[in-house]
Amino acid sequence: MAFYLLERDRDAGRHLASVMAASMDRIGRCESCRTLTEAPLCSICMNPKRDQGLVCVVEGPSDVAAIEQATEFSGGYFVLGGRLSPLDGIGPEELELGRLRQRLAGGGVRELILAISPTIEGSATSHYIAEMAALAQVPVTRIAHGVPLGGELEYVDGGTLAHAFSGRLPV
Amino acid sequence: MAFYLLERDRDAGRHLASVMAASMDRIGRCESCRTLTEAPLCSICMNPKRDQGLVCVVEGPSDVAAIEQATEFSGGYFVLGGRLSPLDGIGPEELELGRLRQRLAGGGVRELILAISPTIEGSATSHYIAEMAALAQVPVTRIAHGVPLGGELEYVDGGTLAHAFSGRLPV
Ligand SMILES: [Zn+2]
Ligand SMILES: [Zn+2]
Repeated sequence: MAFYLLERDRDAGRHLASVMAASMDRIGRCESCRTLTEAPLCSICMNPKRDQGLVCVVEGPSDVAAIEQATEFSGGYFVLGGRLSPLDGIGPEELELGRLRQRLAGGGVRELILAISPTIEGSATSHYIAEMAALAQVPVTRIAHGVPLGGELEYVDGGTLAHAFSGRLPV
Repeated sequence: MAFYLLERDRDAGRHLASVMAASMDRIGRCESCRTLTEAPLCSICMNPKRDQGLVCVVEGPSDVAAIEQATEFSGGYFVLGGRLSPLDGIGPEELELGRLRQRLAGGGVRELILAISPTIEGSATSHYIAEMAALAQVPVTRIAHGVPLGGELEYVDGGTLAHAFSGRLPV
């Protein structure tokens, strides 16, 4: 993109750069859910119709967008900004899990939904948060892991197939 | 492949052709589970260590191979050889569902596991078989559908995400 702008449209390039610079200064993180926002609280946290008794934990703001687009979820979020990864120096503090602990301790949360990617680091993160919620006596659920919709069984990786098989559900 | 053999190795081509022709004559379908086999009964149906009280329904022989490789499943199978697809003329008879009905009616089946791809036709097929099993009072389960292991949430399609979200499970 930078090459295109340099070759074809330097004015547009300058404008884009200034918009980006302003955004970098202006956009911060929501004080409640930690998603990206220009205001102290994001539009979801400000919306009185959202049920903050349901809290969905996601890795990043793009996951909020994906869930908002795909589902009818009308609760609130907690955006981690990553996954626990001790080798990269990302621990509970970097993900601001203390804020989530406070929110759980405050009562009012009826269900904590873990919508974290089922990767190795994601699973460790889910596990850590589930224990935190158990201590606060908040019920925890996680999104279903298994064969993706439209997926042909024979092209699904072995790990997912094994997981889907052992995690089978009554019909 | 045919071009390669024609240009480089016609003897190998002749040999392959005769092996294929012999296979086409020799390989049939297992009388019990309908997978491909050279004998009247396949090696899984012949194996007394396999628990035929668990029956896993799959679309094709390649799914049997995938499940055998990925999981510790030690029950039996029923291989449909396709999915219900009325527009293509594939109905319950083409999938030999009468044989499955007999097996369910015979008692002895404690769990019928639907390991059918969560595609539109696959879901219709699962639904049909689940009703058949309900009539025979056989408990039915299906493999988990959701976000594949290792999958980043933001790259998962909306349908799968919505399904995984609504199908969330207690941790
Ligand atoms: Zn917020
Ligand atoms: Zn068999």
